Amino acid sequence: MSAIETLFRPRSVAVVGASTDATKTSGLPIRFLRQQAFGGEIYPVNPRVGEIDGLRCYGSIDALPSKPDVAMVLLGAARTVEVVRDLAAKGTRYAIVLASGFGESGADGRSRQAELLEAAGPMRILGPNTIGLVNVSDGVPLSASGALAAGQFQKGPVGVVSQSGGILGALLSRAAARGIGLSKLVATSNEADLEIADFIDYLADDAQTSVIALYIETIRNPDTFRRAAAKARAAGKPIVALKIGRSDAGARAAASHTGAMAGSDRTYDAFFRDLGVIRAQSFGDLVDVPAALATQPVLKGRRVAVLTSTGGAGTLVADSLGLTGFDAPVPDEETVARLKQAMPEGHGALDGNPVDITFLMSREPMKVANKANHMPFPLNIRQGLTFWNLVNLSSDTKS
Amino acid sequence: MSAIETLFRPRSVAVVGASTDATKTSGLPIRFLRQQAFGGEIYPVNPRVGEIDGLRCYGSIDALPSKPDVAMVLLGAARTVEVVRDLAAKGTRYAIVLASGFGESGADGRSRQAELLEAAGPMRILGPNTIGLVNVSDGVPLSASGALAAGQFQKGPVGVVSQSGGILGALLSRAAARGIGLSKLVATSNEADLEIADFIDYLADDAQTSVIALYIETIRNPDTFRRAAAKARAAGKPIVALKIGRSDAGARAAASHTGAMAGSDRTYDAFFRDLGVIRAQSFGDLVDVPAALATQPVLKGRRVAVLTSTGGAGTLVADSLGLTGFDAPVPDEETVARLKQAMPEGHGALDGNPVDITFLMSREPMKVANKANHMPFPLNIRQGLTFWNLVNLSSDTKS
Repeated sequence: MSAIETLFRPRSVAVVGASTDATKTSGLPIRFLRQQAFGGEIYPVNPRVGEIDGLRCYGSIDALPSKPDVAMVLLGAARTVEVVRDLAAKGTRYAIVLASGFGESGADGRSRQAELLEAAGPMRILGPNTIGLVNVSDGVPLSASGALAAGQFQKGPVGVVSQSGGILGALLSRAAARGIGLSKLVATSNEADLEIADFIDYLADDAQTSVIALYIETIRNPDTFRRAAAKARAAGKPIVALKIGRSDAGARAAASHTGAMAGSDRTYDAFFRDLGVIRAQSFGDLVDVPAALATQPVLKGRRVAVLTSTGGAGTLVADSLGLTGFDAPVPDEETVARLKQAMPEGHGALDGNPVDITFLMSREPMKVANKANHMPFPLNIRQGLTFWNLVNLSSDTKS
Repeated sequence: MSAIETLFRPRSVAVVGASTDATKTSGLPIRFLRQQAFGGEIYPVNPRVGEIDGLRCYGSIDALPSKPDVAMVLLGAARTVEVVRDLAAKGTRYAIVLASGFGESGADGRSRQAELLEAAGPMRILGPNTIGLVNVSDGVPLSASGALAAGQFQKGPVGVVSQSGGILGALLSRAAARGIGLSKLVATSNEADLEIADFIDYLADDAQTSVIALYIETIRNPDTFRRAAAKARAAGKPIVALKIGRSDAGARAAASHTGAMAGSDRTYDAFFRDLGVIRAQSFGDLVDVPAALATQPVLKGRRVAVLTSTGGAGTLVADSLGLTGFDAPVPDEETVARLKQAMPEGHGALDGNPVDITFLMSREPMKVANKANHMPFPLNIRQGLTFWNLVNLSSDTKS
C-alpha cells in the first residue's frame, strides 16, 4: 500500500477555519463532504461557533477528540503556520494547506514556506496554495474548489495530478461534460512537501486508476519523478502530461504562478520521451488523450478504418489521420464483401474508408452497433452515441 | 437585397413527404417550424393523410393553394426528381432536397443529379444530400437535422455555411454549449445549384451576421467564391474556413462524401491568403475563432496582457501566446502603480503578466469586472464569468 493511501481515504478530517456559510470558500469543504456522505469523522474547528451543519465545532486543535488523519487548513497564510504546528503536535498525519502567500510570492513568501515545512515536522503537507484533492472512486472530497459545487462526478479510470487548482477544476468540468470518468484528482500547487511524483507513485498502485493525466509547470525533483513514472509504466498505466513553459512567456508565467522555475522545454521533451510519458499539446489533449487511452485498445499498426454515421465527421477524422502519419486504406474486396454480408439492409458506403453507415445508424443504432462488433476487423462502437469510431485494420490485431 | 433572401425568410413552405410521426426525420421539419412559431404558411404534402399537427395536408404539389416560396423535399432519390419537376411547374422559388443517392454516389448518382437540375428549371436547389438551413435570427428552421431537436438556439453574429450536414449539427451543438450566438446556418452539401459562394454573398448583406464560418470539402467554382469573399471583406465581415483535404486520406474521404475533388491543399492556402480568409486548423477553431472575432476587438499590436482569475489558466494562455508569436510583456512601473490604485483591496499579483486577480474575483466579481474596464489599458472582461481575458497593451490602441 502506498504511503499516502490514508490521505485519500481518511477516517477523520479536521476542517480548520470552517465557516457556517456554505457558500463561502471556507464553508465548501464540509458541504462537499456531507453531499458525498463521507463516512468518517468530521471535526470543524472554529472558536467562534458551536456547531456547523449539525456537527460539533471545536475551539482549537488541542480540543479535538482524537488526532485527525487529515486536516484541511482554510486560514490565511500568517495563521496557517501556527495552526500547522498545532496539528503536527496533535499527531495529525496530513495537512492540506489552501492559503497563498508562500513560495509563489517573493522572498517573504519563500521564507514563510520554509517555516511552514519546519512547523509540519513529520506531518505531510499538500500545498500550500492548493485547492485540495478529490477521491472520486470512494466519494471523498477534500477540496474547496467551486467546481465541485456542480455536483456529481462520473467515476472512472483517469487519475489527475495538477500543479494548478484552477486547471483541476477546468478538467473536472470538461470531463463531466464529456462523460469521462475520473478516479482521483489532486492539486499539488507549491509542493512544499508532497509533489507530483508522490501521487504518480500512489496512482500506480491504485486499482481504480488505469491512466494518469498530469498538468505540470515544473518538475522540482526529476529523480523521484523518474522512479514514479517507471513504476506507473511497469503497472501498465500510461502517463499523459501537459507541460507548460514551451515559450518564454509561459515559463515566466509559471514562475510567478507557483514559484516554479520551468527549465528548458527541449530537456523536458527528451525526459518525457525517455520515460514513455505522452506529451499533451493542448489543454484539450489532456482530457481527450487519457480518455482515449482509458477506453480504446492501443493500435498496434498504422492502418486505421473510420466507421462513421456522418460523412463530414468521418472526412475530418480521415484528414487528421493523414496529417498525423496514419494510413486510412480503402478496404480490399474481401473486406467489402464481408461488410456487405454483415449489413445487407443498408445503402451506406461500405466500400470506402471512412465506412459510411449513416442511414443504418439513424434507423437501428443498436442493431448496427452489435453487427459492427462482429465485422471483419475488430470494431469498438459505443451503441450509436458516437459520431465516429476508429477501427484498427492491421492484420496483426485481428481478433 | 440578396437574390436568395426569400430562401431564408419565406412566406410559405411546402413540406413534401411530411410524416405524421414527429420523431421521424420526415416528421421533424414541421415540428421544428411549429416550435419556432413560424409565421408563414406551412403546406404539408402527403397523399396518405388528411392533416399533420392540425395543418391541412395536400395530396400533390398540384393541389397546393398557392406557389410556395420554399419546398422541402423529404422523399427518396427516385421520387425526388419528379416532385422537383412538379414544384418547378407550380412556380416554387426554392427546393431544399434532402435525399442522398445523387452526385456523391457513382455514375448513376451523377446522372440523376443532372436530371434533378434539369427538372428544377428556373427553381433554385439547395442540396441534394443536404440537411437544410436554419435562419436563427428570425426563427425559421428549414431542416431535418436531429441536432435542432435539442431546442433553443442562441441568436448571434456568426453565420455558418457547411458542405456537411453532420458538421452543421455538430457546430450547432458546440456553439450552444459554449454560449456562442449564431445568425444563419446552411448545409450546401452536393451543391447541384446553390453553392458556398451564394451564401457568402447573402451573409455579406445580412445585417444579423458579422462573421462567416465555412466548412469546405471543395470549392467548385473559385471565381464565384472569390467575388463573394471580396464582398464580405468589403463589408468588414471576416471569413474563417475549415478546409478538408490537407492529407490524401482526407481528400479521398471528401471525394466519397459529397463527390468533391479536393484539389491541392497548397493551392487553397494561397487562395485563402489572397482573399484574407482565415484558415481554421481544427474543428474547434471553426467555433472558437469566429466567436473571438465576433466578440473581441481585433488586436492592433502583438503585445498582450492576460488578466486572469486563475493562475493555471493564465499560465496556459501566456504559454500559447509565446508559442504563436505574441509578446506577454511584464507591465512597466507606471502600469503596475495604476493597477494597484485601481484595485487597492486585493492581494492579487498585479505586477506580473498574467495579471492575477484570483482573490478579487472570488470576492466581488462584478466590482472587479467594472474596475477592470477602467484599467490603464483597455480591458474587456465579461462580468466575472470568464476564466481569463486577453487585453491589448499596445500603446496605439489605448482608449
